[in-house]
Amino acid sequence: MKEKPHDLIIIGGGPAGLTSALYAGRAGLVTLILEKSTWGGKLLFTERIENYPGFFEPVFAYKLAEEMKKQAEKFGAELREEEVIEIDLKGKEKIVITHQERIYRSLAVVIATGTRHKELGVPGEMELLGKGVSYCGTCDGPLFKDKEIIVVGGGDTALEETIFLSRFAKRIILIHRRDKLRGTKLLQEKIFSLKNLEISWNSVVTEITGKERVEGVKVKNLKSEKEEFLSCAGVFIFIGVKPETGFIKERIKLDGEGFIITDDKLQTSQEGIFACGDVRRNSLKQIVNACAEGALAAKSVEKYLEEVRDG
Amino acid sequence: MKEKPHDLIIIGGGPAGLTSALYAGRAGLVTLILEKSTWGGKLLFTERIENYPGFFEPVFAYKLAEEMKKQAEKFGAELREEEVIEIDLKGKEKIVITHQERIYRSLAVVIATGTRHKELGVPGEMELLGKGVSYCGTCDGPLFKDKEIIVVGGGDTALEETIFLSRFAKRIILIHRRDKLRGTKLLQEKIFSLKNLEISWNSVVTEITGKERVEGVKVKNLKSEKEEFLSCAGVFIFIGVKPETGFIKERIKLDGEGFIITDDKLQTSQEGIFACGDVRRNSLKQIVNACAEGALAAKSVEKYLEEVRDG
Repeated sequence: MKEKPHDLIIIGGGPAGLTSALYAGRAGLVTLILEKSTWGGKLLFTERIENYPGFFEPVFAYKLAEEMKKQAEKFGAELREEEVIEIDLKGKEKIVITHQERIYRSLAVVIATGTRHKELGVPGEMELLGKGVSYCGTCDGPLFKDKEIIVVGGGDTALEETIFLSRFAKRIILIHRRDKLRGTKLLQEKIFSLKNLEISWNSVVTEITGKERVEGVKVKNLKSEKEEFLSCAGVFIFIGVKPETGFIKERIKLDGEGFIITDDKLQTSQEGIFACGDVRRNSLKQIVNACAEGALAAKSVEKYLEEVRDG
Repeated sequence: MKEKPHDLIIIGGGPAGLTSALYAGRAGLVTLILEKSTWGGKLLFTERIENYPGFFEPVFAYKLAEEMKKQAEKFGAELREEEVIEIDLKGKEKIVITHQERIYRSLAVVIATGTRHKELGVPGEMELLGKGVSYCGTCDGPLFKDKEIIVVGGGDTALEETIFLSRFAKRIILIHRRDKLRGTKLLQEKIFSLKNLEISWNSVVTEITGKERVEGVKVKNLKSEKEEFLSCAGVFIFIGVKPETGFIKERIKLDGEGFIITDDKLQTSQEGIFACGDVRRNSLKQIVNACAEGALAAKSVEKYLEEVRDG
């Protein structure tokens, strides 16, 4: 099915994409925003948000997402729940094809598909998500003041998040599958100086247990093959994130991990294609920063369209 | 009076400074934030905000400012109403001196002092300030109910303020030096739909006249070179802004207009000194972007302090 051309197609309906739509709409651009699953994106992996400026009382993530969605609609953006599977960026007019077999055309595209965390893939993980299972220390750390928690991982993010969490938690057990950490030396030194931290080497979480909320984890030692139960109030999982860039691979410049490389106006290696939020290399991975990049991307699109149409 | 050293001193209590304080506080930094007049900064020159993500119903600016202030306090930042008059950035320990003759010390400083309005620089402007001459529609608009007023400018701010003022004024004449407006399309559409507005293109105000209060302006047409007198009760001036960097001039690198130059981590030319928000060169001058830069500056300070203390 062929659709009328838009000025701008935004791919991804998290904070970055929705803010981009809000700004593009206000600038009078005919804007379509496509989201494959949930409006609000990775925002919804948190329950309440303490660090989004403007909310003294922690705002419920679902509420913030809903407001952002309604705000984008209010200024004229068209929202559709469709998954992009194919994209043609070569011509002046870009072509976006969705799983629903619709073909959309536009002069500019903003990619705001974000990242997804890697999951452990163990029983209990999905069931207790937001009930003690978290993928974001900065978001949820303060909720675990004086509690015992488990952290899973060993890279930079895991170590940074563990250092942050150690300010709140009574005791942290860091579960790492190897016999040494992968994170930078400076971070490792910090980690080893923490008084409320223990490290469980060569071990993996095999199950997260609890009824209403997390009550503990089963941990298996990879050398001894022994399994033990550790009681805890929270499980933080930092085994990496992956950018959602599968559908544009080899069409624009990505870094080694698949994050999109942009200039300081957020334009990618391809003219007319912009990127914002967590999918972008070097993004801070904070809600307010994703929103800000969304605003900047829309402003850059506005300028780009003026040039393209004048030229 | 000498005070105990802080980890971080933030200068300026607008959205950028307050968000920086929020993030620094959450990271456990001992943070002082200094504001010379009003918490919320330039935010308060607006009545309601439509484009800050997360608020479907336009949020009152004073309310947003209040929430941000309370949020910064909640996470431990110390807020003081003092004006910074002198600063010594040379050593590892930075020294900040205020008008109240207090001397503060810290390892890192974030400058978030924002901008102030530019003046026309014509006779009568300073003499009649607060007597009909204003730089803030939101503040003074209601005083001009059913009166005739002049607005000078043509960018986003001028258009937004004109739309606001049109609710009160009987008649507005917008004086603009060019033959088309610079503001976004949505705002232009609104402007052209106003029934009580006339636009005087290609023209500038050369004098503001009046004894006790504003009585009128002299307006010169740049094409015909002809000058005419327009009688009015108020003159609102929105011709741009200049950065508040007088107190650090020649101590850190500024651009030609006085905006602070930073790297992509928001560090200035001086180690340990960071800048964020409208005072920074290339900032987008949107609330959400100021906030995002505040968050990034705090993250950069966190890393800087780790390095300084280990080194």
